[in-house]
Amino acid sequence: MTQASPDPALIEELVLANKILFRQNVVDAFGHISVRHDKMANTYLMARHLPPGMVTAADIVTFDLDSNALSHQGMPYYSERFIHGEIYKARPDVISVVHCHARPLIPFGTAKGARLRPMYHMSGFLAEGVPVFEIREAGGMTDMLIRTPELGKALAACLCDKPVVLMRGHGATMVGKSIRQVVFRAVYTAENAVLQMDAHRLGENGEVEFLTAEEGRKADGWGRSVDRAWSLWKDQIMGAP
Amino acid sequence: MTQASPDPALIEELVLANKILFRQNVVDAFGHISVRHDKMANTYLMARHLPPGMVTAADIVTFDLDSNALSHQGMPYYSERFIHGEIYKARPDVISVVHCHARPLIPFGTAKGARLRPMYHMSGFLAEGVPVFEIREAGGMTDMLIRTPELGKALAACLCDKPVVLMRGHGATMVGKSIRQVVFRAVYTAENAVLQMDAHRLGENGEVEFLTAEEGRKADGWGRSVDRAWSLWKDQIMGAP
Amino acid sequence: MTQASPDPALIEELVLANKILFRQNVVDAFGHISVRHDKMANTYLMARHLPPGMVTAADIVTFDLDSNALSHQGMPYYSERFIHGEIYKARPDVISVVHCHARPLIPFGTAKGARLRPMYHMSGFLAEGVPVFEIREAGGMTDMLIRTPELGKALAACLCDKPVVLMRGHGATMVGKSIRQVVFRAVYTAENAVLQMDAHRLGENGEVEFLTAEEGRKADGWGRSVDRAWSLWKDQIMGAP
Amino acid sequence: MTQASPDPALIEELVLANKILFRQNVVDAFGHISVRHDKMANTYLMARHLPPGMVTAADIVTFDLDSNALSHQGMPYYSERFIHGEIYKARPDVISVVHCHARPLIPFGTAKGARLRPMYHMSGFLAEGVPVFEIREAGGMTDMLIRTPELGKALAACLCDKPVVLMRGHGATMVGKSIRQVVFRAVYTAENAVLQMDAHRLGENGEVEFLTAEEGRKADGWGRSVDRAWSLWKDQIMGAP
Repeated sequence: MTQASPDPALIEELVLANKILFRQNVVDAFGHISVRHDKMANTYLMARHLPPGMVTAADIVTFDLDSNALSHQGMPYYSERFIHGEIYKARPDVISVVHCHARPLIPFGTAKGARLRPMYHMSGFLAEGVPVFEIREAGGMTDMLIRTPELGKALAACLCDKPVVLMRGHGATMVGKSIRQVVFRAVYTAENAVLQMDAHRLGENGEVEFLTAEEGRKADGWGRSVDRAWSLWKDQIMGAP
Repeated sequence: MTQASPDPALIEELVLANKILFRQNVVDAFGHISVRHDKMANTYLMARHLPPGMVTAADIVTFDLDSNALSHQGMPYYSERFIHGEIYKARPDVISVVHCHARPLIPFGTAKGARLRPMYHMSGFLAEGVPVFEIREAGGMTDMLIRTPELGKALAACLCDKPVVLMRGHGATMVGKSIRQVVFRAVYTAENAVLQMDAHRLGENGEVEFLTAEEGRKADGWGRSVDRAWSLWKDQIMGAP
Repeated sequence: MTQASPDPALIEELVLANKILFRQNVVDAFGHISVRHDKMANTYLMARHLPPGMVTAADIVTFDLDSNALSHQGMPYYSERFIHGEIYKARPDVISVVHCHARPLIPFGTAKGARLRPMYHMSGFLAEGVPVFEIREAGGMTDMLIRTPELGKALAACLCDKPVVLMRGHGATMVGKSIRQVVFRAVYTAENAVLQMDAHRLGENGEVEFLTAEEGRKADGWGRSVDRAWSLWKDQIMGAP
Repeated sequence: MTQASPDPALIEELVLANKILFRQNVVDAFGHISVRHDKMANTYLMARHLPPGMVTAADIVTFDLDSNALSHQGMPYYSERFIHGEIYKARPDVISVVHCHARPLIPFGTAKGARLRPMYHMSGFLAEGVPVFEIREAGGMTDMLIRTPELGKALAACLCDKPVVLMRGHGATMVGKSIRQVVFRAVYTAENAVLQMDAHRLGENGEVEFLTAEEGRKADGWGRSVDRAWSLWKDQIMGAP
């Protein structure tokens, strides 16, 4: 495969996204974000095996959609890179993918009968429904990780056409049309989980008035908000006064 | 309209209030604070479309009470500026308005039957009652935002003569007689919500002994406390040792 | 009254205690700590009306036990200084007093039937029992504050011979034999409240195995721990690497 | 006993581990970590009586397995050093031990009937079961501390062949095959407790789908993750950009 170099601005945005996800507590030492290559749609870009908060431009590897490394060969990679490759195969509309173990999301994927639903306009995208991936159905008894293309395909099938999928006993995966959108979705999916947990405790019989499907769809429209949040998060990383 | 320049000290106070609200976790990338113009009571001052933590004096726009910009024309503004304009019209006593999505407040506006009530003297002003605005009544299925003068009027009517209104599936709005008072109210409304959530969990059958209306009214009197809190919050922003 | 100057090291310790209480989230802009004068046991030392985090040595006022200022006259003082004066009168064993609105303590003073009890050895001193002060019994409908000698006396009577008293709809007051001990007690009373709230939620029917009176008494013995905690807290304020 | 000097790199790792445990909120002013001496397996290394966040290489004492100091004699030591010595005696496979009062763990050791179980792959090691040590069985009414070899032996017996033991009304102790592994276990044991508490609140009738024993065992295999987390935690202490 002849390789075209990605736009350096895309690499820069991906590095920044890694640091923002760490700063916003979406990832700790674990989790990762990828972006589809801007010039070769059948490849994607993601860091080598590193904590997201420590990623630099020199650490960005190019992978094909089978998640074979086309650069940085022989280095350790994230064992769960198949999450990314298989979603890019199944979802041509997806440009960026986040996988994380964000604290507020684990209980929603693990408590029996729990269902993550949109509390407010910031997370209207959740109104489409949030599936929960049970790895036992696809892989039986595992170490919970998406270590193979088969498990990646099963996860992508569970995600279906939605923006977010929870993973039982593991974490969550989000997708978006851009790095900024998927980071925004990751932050506000986690924030929504915090809010929803408290709302169930407060409501009579645990009842909560969620956004309807229509409210959620309408609230998901505003790209300007994604840029507004990004400008703040970038500012925090860059250390502006 | 002939425009008089606002007192530079008022602008400075408004900029500082933006940074304090961010630092105190009342706002994140979203939310805004305005103040009535000190020389033209039929106009108000508020930042252009920016995260509050990034606002500077150069970003403060003058709006008329229909929320048309009288300065900084052609720039993007907060789409929800009608919250501010319509409240200033309906409430001549109000000098400053905060709109926010503070984390502890969303569950109180969204959980069925929840009611925010004063836990202690710091939030005695809540004893007047905290209405919840249901946008469906005024606007049907929306994106939850106060994007029109009509929705702003409906919100102002729901706020009525109270200091705080919660907004279902969205956030909250506070008003005050000064920038300092409304910032104080925003901080302690959110703090009260945290305390109340825990108290319901601890009390027998969830019961809590709130401040009575009289206790709340008496506890709301002390302007000196507002200045004491402000002096600390200012100190934190200014980076004093 | 002829005044002897307090030991400068005592003033320094009191100033440091103010900053530690702020850093440890026991106080915010509100709350205060006092110490009995080392040379005149019928007077005490406490800051003038300032947020604790901003107190310097120059701000320390000497008060008599009726809470009249003997220095810094004509300046604003804490309106609740009677908490301190009346406790020093009633409790000759007490050398230092903290009053605060620490977040975890408000629900325990306000939720019906709640009782703060010792979760672990760090807060064994709570095994003596933690009374709750209901200001309505002494003062009827008030602004909740201890603004008079009479209310101070009533609070001291409720505290009795215990180390901590909760105040309904207001906060808490702790006493100790030294500045360091009362700061330690304030920090671990609040920490205990956090732990206990979670334990009730986890236990079958909310049941928790607290320390017995004997365990609590034995665990309260170790002065060396107070100095160990103080050394860390001092280090954090002094900015050591 | 002739003493061989430990590898300076081991000392350095132990000092760093102290700071990481503090930074990760596993310990506050209290708690400690030890490591078995690399050249004399019947001795271990641990700081003198200091808050973990303040430990330097010069503070590392050598103890025999009866927890007598072989260096730094006459200085104050942790009174609970018998936790370490007795576990090293009983468990030849153990190379490093952490004792802590981490906030999320106290409720699990104290609430009646509570049981800490693995929520996700990061804490798969909990699937082996987490015993709770009741000091009353071994020592009757105490100050809760492991102040004697006898209490240390009883704790080691309760730990048995497991990686973690909770201590009622006190804290927790973790063991591992290396400093890095035990630090990793301490961090993710506490994280698991936070997640589990929330999951019980969300699940129908409090039910949660934990990792099975087999899932836990498989998830506990991956040493590469321990190094990945360590690299981030080290970076945070070293202040790299």
